[in-house]
Amino acid sequence: MLGARGGWRALRRCPSSIFSSSSSSSSSSSSSLPREQRVPAARLRVRQALGAREAAGEVQVQGWVRSVRSQKEVLFLHINDGSSLESLQVVADPSMDSRDLTFGSAVEVRGKLVKSPHKMQNVELKAESIRVVGPCDALSFPLKAKERHPLEYVRQFPHLRCRSNALGALLRIRSEATAAIHSFFQDNGYVHIHTPIITSNDCEGAGELFQIETSNETQESAEKNHFFNVPAFLTVSGQLHLEVMAGAFTHVFTFGPTFRAENSQSRRHLAEFYMVEAELSFTESLQDITQVMEDLFKTATSAVFSRCPRDVELFHKYVAPAQKWGCDLQREHEKYLVQHCGEVPVFVINYPYDLKPFYMRDNEDGPQRTVAAVDLLVPGIGELCGGSLREERLPFLESRLQRLGLSDAYQWYLDLRKFGSVPHGGFGMGFERYLQYILGVDNIKDVIPFPRFPHSCLL
Amino acid sequence: MLGARGGWRALRRCPSSIFSSSSSSSSSSSSSLPREQRVPAARLRVRQALGAREAAGEVQVQGWVRSVRSQKEVLFLHINDGSSLESLQVVADPSMDSRDLTFGSAVEVRGKLVKSPHKMQNVELKAESIRVVGPCDALSFPLKAKERHPLEYVRQFPHLRCRSNALGALLRIRSEATAAIHSFFQDNGYVHIHTPIITSNDCEGAGELFQIETSNETQESAEKNHFFNVPAFLTVSGQLHLEVMAGAFTHVFTFGPTFRAENSQSRRHLAEFYMVEAELSFTESLQDITQVMEDLFKTATSAVFSRCPRDVELFHKYVAPAQKWGCDLQREHEKYLVQHCGEVPVFVINYPYDLKPFYMRDNEDGPQRTVAAVDLLVPGIGELCGGSLREERLPFLESRLQRLGLSDAYQWYLDLRKFGSVPHGGFGMGFERYLQYILGVDNIKDVIPFPRFPHSCLL
Repeated sequence: MLGARGGWRALRRCPSSIFSSSSSSSSSSSSSLPREQRVPAARLRVRQALGAREAAGEVQVQGWVRSVRSQKEVLFLHINDGSSLESLQVVADPSMDSRDLTFGSAVEVRGKLVKSPHKMQNVELKAESIRVVGPCDALSFPLKAKERHPLEYVRQFPHLRCRSNALGALLRIRSEATAAIHSFFQDNGYVHIHTPIITSNDCEGAGELFQIETSNETQESAEKNHFFNVPAFLTVSGQLHLEVMAGAFTHVFTFGPTFRAENSQSRRHLAEFYMVEAELSFTESLQDITQVMEDLFKTATSAVFSRCPRDVELFHKYVAPAQKWGCDLQREHEKYLVQHCGEVPVFVINYPYDLKPFYMRDNEDGPQRTVAAVDLLVPGIGELCGGSLREERLPFLESRLQRLGLSDAYQWYLDLRKFGSVPHGGFGMGFERYLQYILGVDNIKDVIPFPRFPHSCLL
Repeated sequence: MLGARGGWRALRRCPSSIFSSSSSSSSSSSSSLPREQRVPAARLRVRQALGAREAAGEVQVQGWVRSVRSQKEVLFLHINDGSSLESLQVVADPSMDSRDLTFGSAVEVRGKLVKSPHKMQNVELKAESIRVVGPCDALSFPLKAKERHPLEYVRQFPHLRCRSNALGALLRIRSEATAAIHSFFQDNGYVHIHTPIITSNDCEGAGELFQIETSNETQESAEKNHFFNVPAFLTVSGQLHLEVMAGAFTHVFTFGPTFRAENSQSRRHLAEFYMVEAELSFTESLQDITQVMEDLFKTATSAVFSRCPRDVELFHKYVAPAQKWGCDLQREHEKYLVQHCGEVPVFVINYPYDLKPFYMRDNEDGPQRTVAAVDLLVPGIGELCGGSLREERLPFLESRLQRLGLSDAYQWYLDLRKFGSVPHGGFGMGFERYLQYILGVDNIKDVIPFPRFPHSCLL
């Protein structure tokens, strides 16, 4: 494998098929060359075209038709390719119209970018040719031209809703938010860790778990002979695994899927959702933790708002409802607190010892009275982040695990306190709730590409 | 929820505990203030200290002891905090030595950065105080000072191996590679999509699947009444879901965990591994796909090599073995090809129709003869990437799904070809194999933080 180090520099194409060397020329001609010869034209994405000035050369734009308006003298199209909320206006001769040129169809337009007479746009594309690449039967297509479909409506079509304005904007924002969160941690010296999805930890007390078996195992054989030799579950949090890494790197984070098998149909729960989690070593104060939460929130949100202003505006103008709350009893406390503080985000700290998991640090303000836990509550959502200092003191942790009957299962976790233990803490932020909050989206199912919840696993 | 938009600017701390407002001062003093008053000193990470010049003020460095050398006149320590492969040399008065100051212990050192007389380092830390934060029992700690433990050895200790030089370097590289891959796609206008982990697709033919149940379901009840109403599985690929998104955004990618329930103990298979997948619309040639593979590989690898030169060097010098191959029969073909081409990466294209999944595009070079598929084979690893043009033509796809008896299950997939279908294609790259290849790591279990494979799901 020594060759590997230099090998990548020499990456090269092997043009012949190993299975059909005798016919390599015919087979490669059908797949490796354009299917028709065309004059090369600069291929622009809609976002690039919209930001361009009038240009002399021919350009080519590909995308989906968002509107067709055929007038006597002129044909207007709007083309969208998902690179921005805005579509590009195409101006064409009415002779270029065709039966296939409908809302939703895929087209390739060639022409010249010219200055637009309209105030709303710098340029428009004066078409020289329009090719319908993929038609769209407007009658059976569930999205309709010029309609602002409610989020509940498009939710029925998980394979098509990304083509609506709202979900398109949402997914661009989600992508930018993902990048901004990665950058925040990277810029602050955190090491990114892929914490495992499948885990043998089953007793963190974070709600019901999904269990995993190979698809051909029967219940009987599964109990005797699991694929992993032990029962295995989908992770509810990467925290314990991040704590392992915080013992080597001091600053670590993860950003991945987590799971709950709770039978909840609420507007803020999913069976599969994303969590951003961070762990910091040599940290003795909850304020170190809340400071990172606050910095993360502000940095990521500023980045999203400045990188996708039009997409964010769509939500703030047309989607965000008047303030609304869930109605379960516990949430009333959270609601009261946030209202009491004037409808701003609020950190709540130092929770009762017995309510919290074994790994939280005893505040020693009385016999097992409170732990150094913190939740961040935000208006309209409730809990957005949860964190704590972790119990780094071996005797405290040993006696707590012993009382819970978990000492054997967590020998490895106790080891972390035996070999160079340090005060540390961390937190998790629900990524979908974060998006709900900054955009004012009522239902969590509308801020994730493919929502999974009780009775539903579409696609 | 309208307040949400302004609310984040006003993020503020609520200092009192809701559960113990009467004792808020005592509880907050134990968690929110440092446990002892100290003079403030600039806190530096080891990487920052190593890059600094001699400085007048007092600094504080925290980390784990990598070596202790006590001489008559002087005490030498090396401190590592995971921010770099290199440790910081600390020079102290022998009176500061203590029984707890051992290999592996966690320490906090205060002192001044002074010019080092040694050639290997710019500066060293002249200690004014050394505090052992967490001792480490050197006898029971499985890592030993000054030993280069084999990867096989440290693999037995998944909760401690990140503190070895090799795994520390690996995880820093993995983090940088993750960031570089995200940047590559972001810089090229791709939208990042979180494709789902739990899916109801079970018939892509990519090997055995893991099935999911809630942990309290019995086999009998599970068959009648699944959590999701339908059988649910762990994803083997995000491709089909990416294709949904490629119908709205033209350029999309995902980077997440995928799963195989195969009973393989090979050095290049895991039950849980990471895939980078991309999908491109308006693409009619395999060369468009192979170009992206090649650009991704080169851009990410250049970034990793330039950002972590010392970490990469450790692997190339001490870890990468002489070239070695698996021994199963099919892999012999791959091996032959790569050798035949001179030990460089090779693209193999146009595979037989019947060997490949239903979504690959018919090359029409004969009746169902070959499809526009491509694999990238690299020396020492074999298949690193796999991709194809996807069948975008409704009649071709319909008849193939019908022959396979899959038409009902994939109505949604056929819909994508009914409503503005476009020629498109994409590929996936195994992230762990990528790391194996660029670093010359023989066993895939050593390039992922917590490996999952048959009979093993530790932690």
